[in-house]
Amino acid sequence: MKDKIKSVLISGGTHGNEMSGLQAVQNWQSDAGELMTLARTYELQFALTNQQAIARCTRFIDEDLNRQFSHTKLAQAKSNSGPYEVSLAAELNQRFGPKGESKTDFIIDIHNTTSNMGATLIVLENDEFHQQLARYVKSVMPEAVILVEDYQAFEHFAYFCTLGKRGLMIEVGPQPQGTLKAKAYADTLNLTKAVLSFIELYNKNDIAPLAAVEAYRLGKEVKYPEGPNGNKSAMIHPALDHQDFKLLSKGAVCFIDFAGNEIVWEGEDTYPHFIGEAAYNRLNIAFATAEKIQF
Amino acid sequence: MKDKIKSVLISGGTHGNEMSGLQAVQNWQSDAGELMTLARTYELQFALTNQQAIARCTRFIDEDLNRQFSHTKLAQAKSNSGPYEVSLAAELNQRFGPKGESKTDFIIDIHNTTSNMGATLIVLENDEFHQQLARYVKSVMPEAVILVEDYQAFEHFAYFCTLGKRGLMIEVGPQPQGTLKAKAYADTLNLTKAVLSFIELYNKNDIAPLAAVEAYRLGKEVKYPEGPNGNKSAMIHPALDHQDFKLLSKGAVCFIDFAGNEIVWEGEDTYPHFIGEAAYNRLNIAFATAEKIQF
Repeated sequence: MKDKIKSVLISGGTHGNEMSGLQAVQNWQSDAGELMTLARTYELQFALTNQQAIARCTRFIDEDLNRQFSHTKLAQAKSNSGPYEVSLAAELNQRFGPKGESKTDFIIDIHNTTSNMGATLIVLENDEFHQQLARYVKSVMPEAVILVEDYQAFEHFAYFCTLGKRGLMIEVGPQPQGTLKAKAYADTLNLTKAVLSFIELYNKNDIAPLAAVEAYRLGKEVKYPEGPNGNKSAMIHPALDHQDFKLLSKGAVCFIDFAGNEIVWEGEDTYPHFIGEAAYNRLNIAFATAEKIQF
Repeated sequence: MKDKIKSVLISGGTHGNEMSGLQAVQNWQSDAGELMTLARTYELQFALTNQQAIARCTRFIDEDLNRQFSHTKLAQAKSNSGPYEVSLAAELNQRFGPKGESKTDFIIDIHNTTSNMGATLIVLENDEFHQQLARYVKSVMPEAVILVEDYQAFEHFAYFCTLGKRGLMIEVGPQPQGTLKAKAYADTLNLTKAVLSFIELYNKNDIAPLAAVEAYRLGKEVKYPEGPNGNKSAMIHPALDHQDFKLLSKGAVCFIDFAGNEIVWEGEDTYPHFIGEAAYNRLNIAFATAEKIQF
């Protein structure tokens, strides 16, 4: 078992146009009173990670900050002349890491999505700690969704939250980039508080045994249909849009092309999510698949 | 009466992260066959106006392009060293204008909004031509919303579409920035085609008399509540969100602050729109008011 958790970082603004984390962290920086009552056994700190992107209300300046924290990428950040987020990642690694030998025991990095993913907790390790965490969160917030990304070891992810000894992401939707929705904001606060409460119980060795909960395990990315020129030739079908984490069956409509033709899902039954997410549009990614698991 | 309309420009990408106009214009640039069947008596051309913003999938690079086309602003664009959109505006003015003596008879500039404004046509002149246009559009597309901005003369607006002898904007929502929704795309196509059909009838002097229709006249911008530091202290209340063009009565809930307190609307009864629009968030604009009129 890893040590008790002595330091927790809550971060927002890793993507500068995701307003709920940004606003939550700003509000906690002004007044963390309520969170402090949950966090008796550990230190809490807050950070807005990508200040330049925040100032421009854009996801990133040069490159996606939340894809810069692999060991390989961090090792490359030698000069100041490269992409802004590469040097920013090195700076954040010094401040909150370094990755692999971190001074920060736990990082909660807050995101939001244009897709209808609800109040989702993205966990990157399939171990007892994270299973207990997921079960506790679902016990106090039954509508929360647990998304498990465990196709590689925690340290191999390039996410900001992997600078911590442990880390996870909060991903709430739907919320358009650059907007702040009251529901997404409330979900973000509730998820964060549930995680903090769990850490408190964990530190006190005070976790009641909880039964496995339903979760989703990330599968693969699905691309939009493309025309001969490599451009998208279709959109998400309205019957699929906003149906994140609902079953998509083989043969169900999935896309609609610009001439109005419906295109069906030819893969196996799956649970799509990040459906139509704005940030993945330029990468031609339509959604991600998942399988339902007990966690 | 102004001359017949001989040239129509359809533009998208004036804001580089508004995908429905961008995609529609790209598709028409590949194949304008269907539109050509509607436009027998005039020339059609297409343009993607802010290429750099489109490439970055951002609203603008330095300044909002759609606020650069006042006579004053256009007169200022002397050098290449200023903001990108200032020199781009001068270039577009040469190419499609010049404003006031334009080579383009009509500009349809296509936009979308994160707010739930539906399929809205924004007209900038309250004259017989635009009244007939609005009535025709509503006759073929009853769900269309007519928004009249007539608080100043057409030529005094700084919108791109005012480079034409006449011009208007299509504004469809809800659609998050950077995403393309099938419904918004279809609405955009239908509104555009309705306007093109009207121009064809107008040129042929073949417009049946139509009764006045319901429309909305733009009132003023309403700011978010602000704290002592000038930052937003509240969000759009969920009861107001997505209720664009629905009656907001004096005393109805309007905002919710970060402590969960509800704030009521203290103005007169009004029809809010652009509710929570992402692009106005940084300006602290929560929505715009409107009165219902017969047009």
